Amino acid sequence: MNDGPDPLADVRDIVIVGSGVAGLSAAVYAARADLEPLVLEGPEPGGQLTLTTDVENYLGFPEGVGGMELIQNGTEQAERFGAEFAHGTVENATLEERPFELALSNGDRLRTRALIVASGASARWVGAENEDELMGYGLSTCATCDGAFHRGDDVLVIGGGDSAMEEALFLAKFADSVTIVHRREELRASEIMADRAREHDAIEFHWNTELEALHGSREEGVTGATLVSHPDGYPSEKLESGGDVNRKTVDIGGVFYAVGHTPNTEFLERTAVERDESGYLATRTDDAGRGTTETAVEGVFAAGDVADPEYQQAITAAGTGSMAALDAEASLETLEVSGQTALEPTP
Amino acid sequence: MNDGPDPLADVRDIVIVGSGVAGLSAAVYAARADLEPLVLEGPEPGGQLTLTTDVENYLGFPEGVGGMELIQNGTEQAERFGAEFAHGTVENATLEERPFELALSNGDRLRTRALIVASGASARWVGAENEDELMGYGLSTCATCDGAFHRGDDVLVIGGGDSAMEEALFLAKFADSVTIVHRREELRASEIMADRAREHDAIEFHWNTELEALHGSREEGVTGATLVSHPDGYPSEKLESGGDVNRKTVDIGGVFYAVGHTPNTEFLERTAVERDESGYLATRTDDAGRGTTETAVEGVFAAGDVADPEYQQAITAAGTGSMAALDAEASLETLEVSGQTALEPTP
Repeated sequence: MNDGPDPLADVRDIVIVGSGVAGLSAAVYAARADLEPLVLEGPEPGGQLTLTTDVENYLGFPEGVGGMELIQNGTEQAERFGAEFAHGTVENATLEERPFELALSNGDRLRTRALIVASGASARWVGAENEDELMGYGLSTCATCDGAFHRGDDVLVIGGGDSAMEEALFLAKFADSVTIVHRREELRASEIMADRAREHDAIEFHWNTELEALHGSREEGVTGATLVSHPDGYPSEKLESGGDVNRKTVDIGGVFYAVGHTPNTEFLERTAVERDESGYLATRTDDAGRGTTETAVEGVFAAGDVADPEYQQAITAAGTGSMAALDAEASLETLEVSGQTALEPTP
Repeated sequence: MNDGPDPLADVRDIVIVGSGVAGLSAAVYAARADLEPLVLEGPEPGGQLTLTTDVENYLGFPEGVGGMELIQNGTEQAERFGAEFAHGTVENATLEERPFELALSNGDRLRTRALIVASGASARWVGAENEDELMGYGLSTCATCDGAFHRGDDVLVIGGGDSAMEEALFLAKFADSVTIVHRREELRASEIMADRAREHDAIEFHWNTELEALHGSREEGVTGATLVSHPDGYPSEKLESGGDVNRKTVDIGGVFYAVGHTPNTEFLERTAVERDESGYLATRTDDAGRGTTETAVEGVFAAGDVADPEYQQAITAAGTGSMAALDAEASLETLEVSGQTALEPTP
């Protein structure tokens, strides 16, 4: 019936960047609205949750659910309603007009009428020996998620900011002792948080100290750690420049990294999507002052940790994923009514 | 050790009003933070979800999950971490100072340092015959939840506002035909939404018409409906005042009520908690402009539909439930530091 190639034939209604909880929840909603979303899995398919063994606080699973299992369930659920998944990392986005254009790192290009950014925030790691092996097995980047597994343990928290203090205070409810390991002698944390940690009976500090290696196995979990220290701080820098450090090994049952998260938003750097000073996406509030998922660019929505430096929970990410899909659907309907772009189904 | 009765002995750290998805998710988080929350189940234990048979869009369940099953799972999960449940409906709240005081309809009084309001919004019903029997079995108050079950069906949407138009447009993706049943000849919906519904090939209108009775069974679902109409509109009022109406029975496969929701916030009427003109709770944004769950009263938090006229999904309610617990926990810690009230565990 067509005289020539349809210039919109390769335009998607919705592309979702990221396949963690937020992206999957958005995919379920968009797919159920018959919008045939494409989910780009990115460099860490499944996101942060794949680093957690047991998720106990995601509502609906009385005995908890494996992080990987939840991701697999969600993927299956989205696929069941018609979501498509593809390997691919967005390197660059052109968002001046709709359809938007995405350039992937493998050279592919995609066009889409609506974009949901659910690319997450990656917890920073410190580079200690065995951290790859033990992440999720006694080594964690989330005290709220995993703290309750450490009743009666001695644990370390690595970091010196507010979130390290928070994690330490939270862990002190469960652990026998919490030791904050900080590479300097001074905390970056706010005074009130630092005071609270200092005044807590179960919390100690190892100043001018860094974590060099973790000991244990996936079967036993973390059993110990090697710490290096130097009276002037920054021991690993001292080591690198050929200096001497003190080294000791401690028996512990868990290690928590609290050295920050980095939102994965570099690919939006040259767009009009607003980011805060840490790179987290800003989203708009509606006329009643309630939060939405729309970014500064109409038709671009943000879900999950990438727009949430505060809560960063699996269940909150799933919630904003669904909101983003509903917001995107409404935006596509407006587009259709205003006649800017016909909403033809992709072939 | 005590000389007399401890005046704080009966003060809770957290009381959660409502045992739907939002309240349960808040309970899981608060219990895991060792705050021993008390959940007041209210007049509709389990909330709106107990009216839905299959929930297909709650991330984590590839084959869907029963509404009641999800609520039971969540209750078990919260209890496992130490949440307590009690029958009870709050009639009045005194929030001028902490601890807050709650008066229950059975005469009991409770005191709590933090309050999470997750009392939901009840979908309005129209009062048709058999609606009790068939709610969740072909009769639904949520097209987003249940629309996909009606591929190829003829369905009715009851209502004349924006949400009725939205539900009809959404259902038109799946159903063979959608008939909007409205008791007047004029829509309350915005022009753009009304136009979109009017222009849609699969959407028809029955003006001056009301739903009198539903036919079917829990086994077969909804199979038909009796409609009454009067040329001047408001047929049921005409009937009540002894007038004549036209009555006809139609074969249909589903009915969706879209006559609004009422947030359950009457018990906050005489407090400083802010509500919008429909009664939904207003929540604060943080310094970065991001949404929180804190209401206008410090220490009082809102989660789920009661603060969300827009999305009202199970997964979004679970998300804000977890946020409310985290916000409440932070607020209790501030209270502890400022020394207003000692945070003694309840006995």
